[in-house]
Amino acid sequence: MRPAPAAIGDSVAAIDTPALVVDLDAFERNLQTMADFARAHGVKLRPHAKMHKCAAIALRQMALGAVGVCVQKTGEAEALAAAGVSDIFVSNEVIAPAKLARLAALARRVRLAITVDSALGIDRLARAVKNAGSTVDVFIEIDVGQGRCGVSPEQAAALARQVDAHALPPGPAGAGLHLTGLQAYHGSAQHYRSAAERAAAVEQAVAIVSAARAAISAAGIDAPLIVTGAGSGTFMLEAGSGVYGELQPGSYAFLDADYARNTPHPDAPRFEHALFVKAQVMSASAAHVVVDAGHKSHAIESGLPTVWQREGLQVVGANDEHCMLKPRVEVAALPALGDTLWLVPGHCDPTVNLHDHLIAVRGGLECGAVEAVWTVDARGRLD
Amino acid sequence: MRPAPAAIGDSVAAIDTPALVVDLDAFERNLQTMADFARAHGVKLRPHAKMHKCAAIALRQMALGAVGVCVQKTGEAEALAAAGVSDIFVSNEVIAPAKLARLAALARRVRLAITVDSALGIDRLARAVKNAGSTVDVFIEIDVGQGRCGVSPEQAAALARQVDAHALPPGPAGAGLHLTGLQAYHGSAQHYRSAAERAAAVEQAVAIVSAARAAISAAGIDAPLIVTGAGSGTFMLEAGSGVYGELQPGSYAFLDADYARNTPHPDAPRFEHALFVKAQVMSASAAHVVVDAGHKSHAIESGLPTVWQREGLQVVGANDEHCMLKPRVEVAALPALGDTLWLVPGHCDPTVNLHDHLIAVRGGLECGAVEAVWTVDARGRLD
Repeated sequence: MRPAPAAIGDSVAAIDTPALVVDLDAFERNLQTMADFARAHGVKLRPHAKMHKCAAIALRQMALGAVGVCVQKTGEAEALAAAGVSDIFVSNEVIAPAKLARLAALARRVRLAITVDSALGIDRLARAVKNAGSTVDVFIEIDVGQGRCGVSPEQAAALARQVDAHALPPGPAGAGLHLTGLQAYHGSAQHYRSAAERAAAVEQAVAIVSAARAAISAAGIDAPLIVTGAGSGTFMLEAGSGVYGELQPGSYAFLDADYARNTPHPDAPRFEHALFVKAQVMSASAAHVVVDAGHKSHAIESGLPTVWQREGLQVVGANDEHCMLKPRVEVAALPALGDTLWLVPGHCDPTVNLHDHLIAVRGGLECGAVEAVWTVDARGRLD
Repeated sequence: MRPAPAAIGDSVAAIDTPALVVDLDAFERNLQTMADFARAHGVKLRPHAKMHKCAAIALRQMALGAVGVCVQKTGEAEALAAAGVSDIFVSNEVIAPAKLARLAALARRVRLAITVDSALGIDRLARAVKNAGSTVDVFIEIDVGQGRCGVSPEQAAALARQVDAHALPPGPAGAGLHLTGLQAYHGSAQHYRSAAERAAAVEQAVAIVSAARAAISAAGIDAPLIVTGAGSGTFMLEAGSGVYGELQPGSYAFLDADYARNTPHPDAPRFEHALFVKAQVMSASAAHVVVDAGHKSHAIESGLPTVWQREGLQVVGANDEHCMLKPRVEVAALPALGDTLWLVPGHCDPTVNLHDHLIAVRGGLECGAVEAVWTVDARGRLD
């Protein structure tokens, strides 16, 4: 593992490159803004920890009112639970019996929920939970338009009956499944550039969710079901739908370059860039410079990074360990060899997963100091 | 860190998903083929370890005749040296004094070389080497057409004089720089799809290298200079140029999906896919399936993965933790929920960097067993 690129008390200038740096002032405003939004709209907030993979951040989100966090992977749940996170929703299907056994065991220590979208998945989960003697909250995933995981409203009713058959017996004892709600996340809608496209996608999602609720009710199941979903691109729409009771945004905490390319919804709260890769110019010619942070330092699958507060500079390409920068206009000055720059990553989730540490800076990127060094607890937890 | 997804002796079926798996039989043929090629062509082989970041692999390459390995980063050099690799070339510029001090210290323990392309870089390197009392081999990087790092032939002559001024004094003692050669790598040419485009690029590179050698000679420096460069897409061209004395290919050991899209050079030796991501179907509909290995498990910046020995299946999209697969033709059967597949990653270098372990399998992906579990020693060593 790489040694941490800075220590508490270091000046910003002393942070080694490349390093993943959090501007704490912007980050805390982002957390507060989303917490206030959820409270004002009467919806639960369960931020997605696949984005930051960091217990220190999850605990801050929960201290501001989040009911828990989401993760995508069994290993992420284990890593965050080991670091003190007490309420975890695996918002993704798990089909391997060995992983379901791990989750069922984890459910003895933390409040645990999981997503299902198949009869086989429910059977295996029920067996694991029975063996472990634990209780797991179950969300049935509905395909609300992304075409990835999830089932139709009619299939959801059949799966709901199946989950209900494994429900807890009345009374304090026993292991079992608790049919808790519907997972209704539209991932691709988060990145539709126009507010109108995003609104149309969520309108469709709400209609599908409503149909699923009706089908489940018609199947004779009248337990109250929480509808959970939404991301940093659409959360204000789900919050106002009257159907969603819980929001799962992740990227709002850091705001990456891809999300910043969305045209904002007129009524949405605004977030600030709070995640940066500090990079150093290690080669310079008259026409361009090269910095020491390539796509092994920041993910580019959702687009190249932007350069923070250097409007005249543009990243024109990235290799494993290099980014090439050119002036946007001929008059713009290039930085000199040895200068440092701050890149705003294209996509925060896979960027954080490339790093072992987050360097948390207080007082800004110009002359602040390192207040905390956070471990990326679930880095590499693909399992 | 994630626990290793398999143990020595496990069957292939028992490997947890997603996991990065090496087919040892194909891998060893690839290593042998390149070693034989270099020997037959009278050029040195110095494979690029930025690709595998794994000392176990570097040592196998050296056991077959490689003179050492290349890396891109100070941290990679440290990690591989700590694991027993004794001859390391940092084929990249390093400008931070703290990193140069680390490299100069490392040069007391292993044979170390580095690339320079600026007067400032040489000054700082000379100071670090003097402070450490060590010797470092120096390669001047020439821009041979990629337009990334490196200088022109005329600038190379000036830098060569500067390096020479810090040359070792005669006799056994003392610290200093040793002007060793020219770094002349054309990265983008590796991925030009047609053999003719690649040949044209290397022809241009050879002309630029020859001009640089002439300029350096005209500046009064007559030390023998090794020209090093080439990658898995062009190495047969540099080897036949009469100018290059050392080859730096990396990907040949694993052969990713991107390299497989190149039209091969007619005289080039052939390599086989030897790196795979084992993935499991965790959601299935009538029209598509979803596996549990997204772009946090395999890099997609050079294209989506292919599916090994499932011609009828195609990866149509990837998110952080999901890949979506559809049949290429309507008649092709989809795998079932819980089935496992082998993805051939789009780009091996950043894929390996996402994993803590390489699972080395003997006897094939169908019914082989785990022979070794290799640590990715320099995983995350961006520094």
